[in-house]
Amino acid sequence: MDLTIVSQQRCFEGTQGFYSHASAVCGGAMNFSVFQPPQARGGTKVPLVTFLSGLTCTEENFTVKAGAQRVAAELGLMLLVPDTSPRGCGYPGEDDDYDFGSGAGFYLDATEAPWSERYRMYSYITEELPALLAEHFPADLGRQGILGHSMGGHGALTLHLKNPGVYRSVSALAPICAPSQCPWGRKAFTGYLGGDEAAWADYDTCALIRRQPSDAQLFIDQGAEDPFLSEQLMPDLLVEACEEAGQHFEFRMQPDYDHSYYFIQTFIEDHLRHHAKILG
Amino acid sequence: MDLTIVSQQRCFEGTQGFYSHASAVCGGAMNFSVFQPPQARGGTKVPLVTFLSGLTCTEENFTVKAGAQRVAAELGLMLLVPDTSPRGCGYPGEDDDYDFGSGAGFYLDATEAPWSERYRMYSYITEELPALLAEHFPADLGRQGILGHSMGGHGALTLHLKNPGVYRSVSALAPICAPSQCPWGRKAFTGYLGGDEAAWADYDTCALIRRQPSDAQLFIDQGAEDPFLSEQLMPDLLVEACEEAGQHFEFRMQPDYDHSYYFIQTFIEDHLRHHAKILG
Repeated sequence: MDLTIVSQQRCFEGTQGFYSHASAVCGGAMNFSVFQPPQARGGTKVPLVTFLSGLTCTEENFTVKAGAQRVAAELGLMLLVPDTSPRGCGYPGEDDDYDFGSGAGFYLDATEAPWSERYRMYSYITEELPALLAEHFPADLGRQGILGHSMGGHGALTLHLKNPGVYRSVSALAPICAPSQCPWGRKAFTGYLGGDEAAWADYDTCALIRRQPSDAQLFIDQGAEDPFLSEQLMPDLLVEACEEAGQHFEFRMQPDYDHSYYFIQTFIEDHLRHHAKILG
Repeated sequence: MDLTIVSQQRCFEGTQGFYSHASAVCGGAMNFSVFQPPQARGGTKVPLVTFLSGLTCTEENFTVKAGAQRVAAELGLMLLVPDTSPRGCGYPGEDDDYDFGSGAGFYLDATEAPWSERYRMYSYITEELPALLAEHFPADLGRQGILGHSMGGHGALTLHLKNPGVYRSVSALAPICAPSQCPWGRKAFTGYLGGDEAAWADYDTCALIRRQPSDAQLFIDQGAEDPFLSEQLMPDLLVEACEEAGQHFEFRMQPDYDHSYYFIQTFIEDHLRHHAKILG
């Protein structure tokens, strides 16, 4: 699979790059960023940690704002940041809302037309993108972790729960915990998956935990002053599901923090250390 | 002096804020950001370090991209990031060029009309803004440091050299070292200060060093792959001036790094530690 280098820059003795490629799964050009730590120079394989971003983001937000490269460089982690949806599909309403369509792919494979044609972020991130990475970068696909923020926290938790042997470490910052029960999630699932709510459970963290908890510990930070806390994120439901299903988890409510990248940059170091400890 | 809070958010147990105020010196609204470290809670005075940004920047770029809050929170430094020029003056050509007018104030007091009316960033940053800070934040004006990037590196070095007793610590990332001799500087100085090059020396780092070196050590990082290195930044001239005038300095040429915020975020920790060591 071909890869186009958009840019590559030295950062913390590693390489921060932006790339694009023609995705077969998503039926068009897709963008992502990769940070290669200094430990990967010369082709030494290193663990791969994928960060999934929230609504409205591209691959750029986390890459520019989170300050993650410093820690990844120390720990020898490769960081992969995909875009949050296909772009430029030409579907009616594609760019109308911040919480549906472009920038809001919700890390699922859509089944409703026209979205089902190209909005296949689940298969893209779990299958096509890692394979592409392994072809072009020294990424050890046997040592993968996943984390994310908000919609991307939902993505990280669900991708782990559906693939616990692939993503051996998992964490989330202010994740959408129960998309079937919040306005953001219900809107997205209705549009992408249709009105039959039974189909939604396959992409709902709380439902997946109740179906089959994983052996991993879910590591989660949440800002107590997050404006989306009670209406959209609903961590109480996640804690309840974990406790009832026997899912290991650590949930930290962080006083005074909100939903922003100032929250993310404050705690990203703890998250990457969590992943490095497990991925070795 | 009144201050409008644009936003305030928890970050590394401190507070990241954006503010605006009516500047008497610049004749209109001006914006800036302040990071208050956790040590400043309860009104305890802490050292104030001012970061001056480069061409095209606002107060936002460094605040969002540099990852400086983590280090400032550890060291107990307050970070002040001003905008790079007045905005919306209505002067002909004000917004036409990336390297003159809006976003390109060059940290001087203009003497040429119409710029002389409001483009007074030198007086604004050395006098009005610190006084405003001390009124609203626990900033210790007796312990001030200054640093900057590119045009802001020029600003930091010149403001220190003209006020060595005020800015006791100084550093720069990829500074414009000899604005009288590079295209960016010659264009700006001609427009703001007029065609008499004798007047330019008062805002030219190399000229100021040769006139009167300071007792401080200038701490400077430069990326070896910076595309502006030889034509615009000219650190060779700075090293030469320091050596000939007896100015203490440490100049580090960093292999492979360019002019970007990936370069800044890599080395900002070293810079803030340099300031903290001096400011105590």
